[in-house]
Amino acid sequence: MGQMNDEKQMQLKVRLEDLWAKYQAVQEQNLALNMARGKPSPRQLDLSNELLNLPKEYHLEDGTDARNYGILDGIPECKELFGQLLGLNPGNIIIGGNSSLNMMFDTLASLSLFGTGGCKPWAQYRFEGTPVKFLCPVPGYDRHFICCEELGIEMIPVPLLQDGPDMEVVKKLVREDSLIKGIWCVPLHSNPSGVCYSDEVVTQLASMETAAEDFRIFWDNAYGVHHIYEEVSLKNVLEECEKCGNPERAYYFFSTAKITFPGAGVALVASGNQNIAELKKHMSAQTISHDKINQLRHVQFFQNAENIRLHMKKMAQELRPKFDMVLNKLEEELGGTDLATWSQPKGGYFVSVDTKPGCAKRVVSLAKEAGVVLTGAGATYPYKNDEKDSNIRIAPSYPTVEELEKAMDIFILCVKIAGIEQELGTC
Amino acid sequence: MGQMNDEKQMQLKVRLEDLWAKYQAVQEQNLALNMARGKPSPRQLDLSNELLNLPKEYHLEDGTDARNYGILDGIPECKELFGQLLGLNPGNIIIGGNSSLNMMFDTLASLSLFGTGGCKPWAQYRFEGTPVKFLCPVPGYDRHFICCEELGIEMIPVPLLQDGPDMEVVKKLVREDSLIKGIWCVPLHSNPSGVCYSDEVVTQLASMETAAEDFRIFWDNAYGVHHIYEEVSLKNVLEECEKCGNPERAYYFFSTAKITFPGAGVALVASGNQNIAELKKHMSAQTISHDKINQLRHVQFFQNAENIRLHMKKMAQELRPKFDMVLNKLEEELGGTDLATWSQPKGGYFVSVDTKPGCAKRVVSLAKEAGVVLTGAGATYPYKNDEKDSNIRIAPSYPTVEELEKAMDIFILCVKIAGIEQELGTC
Repeated sequence: MGQMNDEKQMQLKVRLEDLWAKYQAVQEQNLALNMARGKPSPRQLDLSNELLNLPKEYHLEDGTDARNYGILDGIPECKELFGQLLGLNPGNIIIGGNSSLNMMFDTLASLSLFGTGGCKPWAQYRFEGTPVKFLCPVPGYDRHFICCEELGIEMIPVPLLQDGPDMEVVKKLVREDSLIKGIWCVPLHSNPSGVCYSDEVVTQLASMETAAEDFRIFWDNAYGVHHIYEEVSLKNVLEECEKCGNPERAYYFFSTAKITFPGAGVALVASGNQNIAELKKHMSAQTISHDKINQLRHVQFFQNAENIRLHMKKMAQELRPKFDMVLNKLEEELGGTDLATWSQPKGGYFVSVDTKPGCAKRVVSLAKEAGVVLTGAGATYPYKNDEKDSNIRIAPSYPTVEELEKAMDIFILCVKIAGIEQELGTC
Repeated sequence: MGQMNDEKQMQLKVRLEDLWAKYQAVQEQNLALNMARGKPSPRQLDLSNELLNLPKEYHLEDGTDARNYGILDGIPECKELFGQLLGLNPGNIIIGGNSSLNMMFDTLASLSLFGTGGCKPWAQYRFEGTPVKFLCPVPGYDRHFICCEELGIEMIPVPLLQDGPDMEVVKKLVREDSLIKGIWCVPLHSNPSGVCYSDEVVTQLASMETAAEDFRIFWDNAYGVHHIYEEVSLKNVLEECEKCGNPERAYYFFSTAKITFPGAGVALVASGNQNIAELKKHMSAQTISHDKINQLRHVQFFQNAENIRLHMKKMAQELRPKFDMVLNKLEEELGGTDLATWSQPKGGYFVSVDTKPGCAKRVVSLAKEAGVVLTGAGATYPYKNDEKDSNIRIAPSYPTVEELEKAMDIFILCVKIAGIEQELGTC
């Protein structure tokens, strides 16, 4: 707080009273608005409704009946489609079920139970009292952190800078500690801060020296084609790993959750030859095949990679007015103040707001009481522990622009109240 | 072999020569027939083609948009439908993805990583050098055994009698050995021998004393409504476990793999309150939801349990002529001989044949050379180890009746050749 003269204090009190009056007026409206999760809006989902009438034909190109058993690792047409889209070798892709999160969890579970490349299973470290660790660039995706927590993998937060994780910190940690077995990366339009990894960062991740032989990058390219304001390119991490002599270092995940239907899309993992062979072996005990009809449905809907990109341009048209609303409101109301800073995403699903330290929980709580649900404060940090109590993730996709306007007005009101309360020491 | 007079031996040799001549004639036909896996035929799959045009409406009864994120444990309509069909409490059901095998594996993987009810994780025993064990009624389903093998769970074969596992053996083993943590059961129309568990066996499984506090029954009711010749009822194992004071003893698995489309159906697990709460907790780290659109598709297709039963009557009409062909051929050609015995299934997908000891591998190999693929000999035993080398699983569902007739003629020819070879000591 420091020194504050009486006049300044009085001004702030008056301002706070005024804000409280506005807040009470809002409360009386009994609103129910939600900016908590990265859920597509119904209008976004409508863009994929043709899927509901597919497939028209249930035979694959080679004559296989997609209705029956078989094809563990996905239909060739689907591997081809996503290989084309992402610049991946179809032979190094496994098409899974409806959820890339599920594939990430299962990959982590496999590493925990079986290890990789002859190395010790990761769960064994835990049972012996020295659990393995993952680096978690922060702020990050809460569900990644929950996977680690569930599997008893210790998390070490590392700063996420404008072009990717702070590589000086990362390189030092992985070089020194052989218990650090992996790092979570959302390399494009990251959740929540919209960071896009630079080529230099990708190369460093692929080439850096690691104490652990079985160090793995969990490359969750969830927003790989989800550009809103600007198309951003991304260096191919698998190629880069191969080039650097670490062909098995990265697992590359992708899904159509935010391209078609979140619960009824298609997910994939791609990796080096040995990892893919290992995953297929484990999968062959786990299942006979994933849903080939749904894979075919997606292939028939998109036909080629170019159509996915066109589809995502329509998606961007839906999302842009919403991101405009959020970013303009923040700029108009909080720009130039010390109350908050925020990200300027080029794509993805989120705007990341940093309030003054110590205010995030208060803001989320105030917003909730006024009918606006936000992602829980702290959720973007491992163990929900945002030491500065500052980061809040805003998810603008689901509400309408009109709802967003109301929700943002309330959010900004709450940021102001919490900020002034703190300044006055009344909070 | 024992004693054999010259005349008898000469007769057998002449007969064998005659059989070889027939075999060579068959080989020249270059046939490619397959009785290896329990795959539905295209005509069976056609019965569900209407699914390809569903859902007509993507909102749930309560207004939820099934296209979007949410509902971890399955849509209420789907729980209701299968609850009705199987006499299960919808509140104790989790609807999963497309594969009950996947749910079984994931349940085993969860038990391995996390344990249950506060007991030690099963993988920890393995890392400590004393792996946990499962009882495997034999002959049984190869994919169950592969799950155990993959997870390092030791398998102990126990005899499968006409009304279920040999309960005297089972009860003794589980009472004495606390490392025995579970048993695989296919309680109706078992794979491969078509055994249906009696009420008495279900009660004993539910009530028996087990040394392991965390003993679990893996109740794979894969053929729960798959009657062909006769409707067989099955005592509700979950109710029985509850009644006997062991409410968390059984996991009940079911799927529509052999009701609608094998790779694009809906699977479920049901269990006691605590197990379901545990599984949901683990699942909540693993995924956001399974494919609700596909769940809805199935609900709209069937509407109610009675329609599933009617659907299965049509399925039985497809399968009955095929089972008739297999069983009649066996009876006509091998009935009253010492060359083979076989099961008399009332439903399910298989006929289990026991050749003379020491002949199964030879029969499968002879059949293969003549263009008929059978399930590998030994596959119906843990570690593929059929000590008697006697059991062969026949899967009649996929070929046409005409193809089956040819395939059975060849199979029987091979059984005869192998049997006589053995008698002559030439094999």
